[in-house]
Amino acid sequence: MSANLQSATAQEVRRVFRSGELCRPTASLASGHVQANLVVLDKSLAFDFLLFCQRNPKPCPVLDVTEPGSPVPALTAPDADLRTDLPKYRVYRNGVLVDEPLDIQSYWTDDMVGFLLGCSFTFERALLQNGIPVRHIEAQCNVPMFRTNIPCVKAGVFEGPMVVSMRPIPAQDVVRAVQVTSRFPSMHGAPIHMGDPGAIGIADITRPDFGDPVPIHPGEIPVFWACGVTPQSVAMHVKPALMITHAPGHMFITDLRDEQLAVL
Amino acid sequence: MSANLQSATAQEVRRVFRSGELCRPTASLASGHVQANLVVLDKSLAFDFLLFCQRNPKPCPVLDVTEPGSPVPALTAPDADLRTDLPKYRVYRNGVLVDEPLDIQSYWTDDMVGFLLGCSFTFERALLQNGIPVRHIEAQCNVPMFRTNIPCVKAGVFEGPMVVSMRPIPAQDVVRAVQVTSRFPSMHGAPIHMGDPGAIGIADITRPDFGDPVPIHPGEIPVFWACGVTPQSVAMHVKPALMITHAPGHMFITDLRDEQLAVL
Repeated sequence: MSANLQSATAQEVRRVFRSGELCRPTASLASGHVQANLVVLDKSLAFDFLLFCQRNPKPCPVLDVTEPGSPVPALTAPDADLRTDLPKYRVYRNGVLVDEPLDIQSYWTDDMVGFLLGCSFTFERALLQNGIPVRHIEAQCNVPMFRTNIPCVKAGVFEGPMVVSMRPIPAQDVVRAVQVTSRFPSMHGAPIHMGDPGAIGIADITRPDFGDPVPIHPGEIPVFWACGVTPQSVAMHVKPALMITHAPGHMFITDLRDEQLAVL
Repeated sequence: MSANLQSATAQEVRRVFRSGELCRPTASLASGHVQANLVVLDKSLAFDFLLFCQRNPKPCPVLDVTEPGSPVPALTAPDADLRTDLPKYRVYRNGVLVDEPLDIQSYWTDDMVGFLLGCSFTFERALLQNGIPVRHIEAQCNVPMFRTNIPCVKAGVFEGPMVVSMRPIPAQDVVRAVQVTSRFPSMHGAPIHMGDPGAIGIADITRPDFGDPVPIHPGEIPVFWACGVTPQSVAMHVKPALMITHAPGHMFITDLRDEQLAVL
């Protein structure tokens, strides 16, 4: 089944999740297809949130936004339904996690807007294809993520610090890692920092705020990318009456191919 | 004066326009700085319009959006004032041009949102720097623009066909023209079509819908780029109670340098 889902189309994998028969993280499924973070908010917050994304494209690269009330991501998967096609969701009321359902049909209303934001799976695949190791994949754990002292650009009610993910890269591969990830600005793009964690307000590189710690070997440089947890972290601060996201690692799989979103 | 303004900073040129002492097209002023199309709309239309831009990034590349009521483009020129710093504006009521003032202070209200969208000046400069001729600059006329049969992706009330600009490019320079303009996705980026005008619904290449006709010499291929007139043309169709834009050729000059917005 797992091998089948890796070589399956995005549509096939979404159909399996829609049926409710399977719930698992989406990494490596429908290989080569762009996966996305989901954020669902009330339409009264939608302009501010879209503006926040527009002003902070590295942590919040917008792939698709639904019409208010529509669960259909028309640009990225026109036959999909954001209420059922992800394996698992998280529901927050006033900033508090209250549910982790396998579909969100009972929560959905005509006032909701769904935002799909690019995620790092695309550029991690590109790093691996370039022979550049990705530590947390080797270690089969979550990527380490840190709150920084870099403020996002405020938009309406949304403001807060950027969250970054860290990957230790061998010094001789750092330039190539910048080149490779620069090709994918819709999936966080080029790193935002490399080297001294303290320079961006990270006190202890061995204690991430989210995800798991990973070792940095001699000769490796910690390289930091803007992270898709940023918009959730920022939205949480606003404590919206209702916010729904994907569950960590349980992403939305679009019809787009990674290479279709490469800039050159 | 003109030579001075060409080598002046963006801030200096904006100050001259703000004083009301000079009104002229902005091409070549504050050389090397990014210039932008302006669209001002009521905040009730702002989400739909921002979504339209997000879904149609080639004709509508967003550089900056003001907070509702603020005339300050905080990302691109934090000391500027969109009400006074352009040389000339156009005011439309219910889709009809009613005024062409030198400032818009008397029209501005707390409900207004200003959108700055990238324009073609940046990539035209890059073409010239690569030795690729730009016909309408040689001819000292306006670039020819055409309505196409390519529908933009609808967003809320905003929909309509893409408008394109056309530049005849010598066949041997076409690949380089694609490469050069691909570097600037925030200024319309790569062409959307080359060759047969009929394939995108253009009946007569000698009769543009906007701007001036230019000759296509033997051995040249007509190359079409998404055009910043698109959002105005689409917004006009909605006939908003009030819409304000820059006057053609009288752009907003940002503090950003062209190269800062190149993808690689």
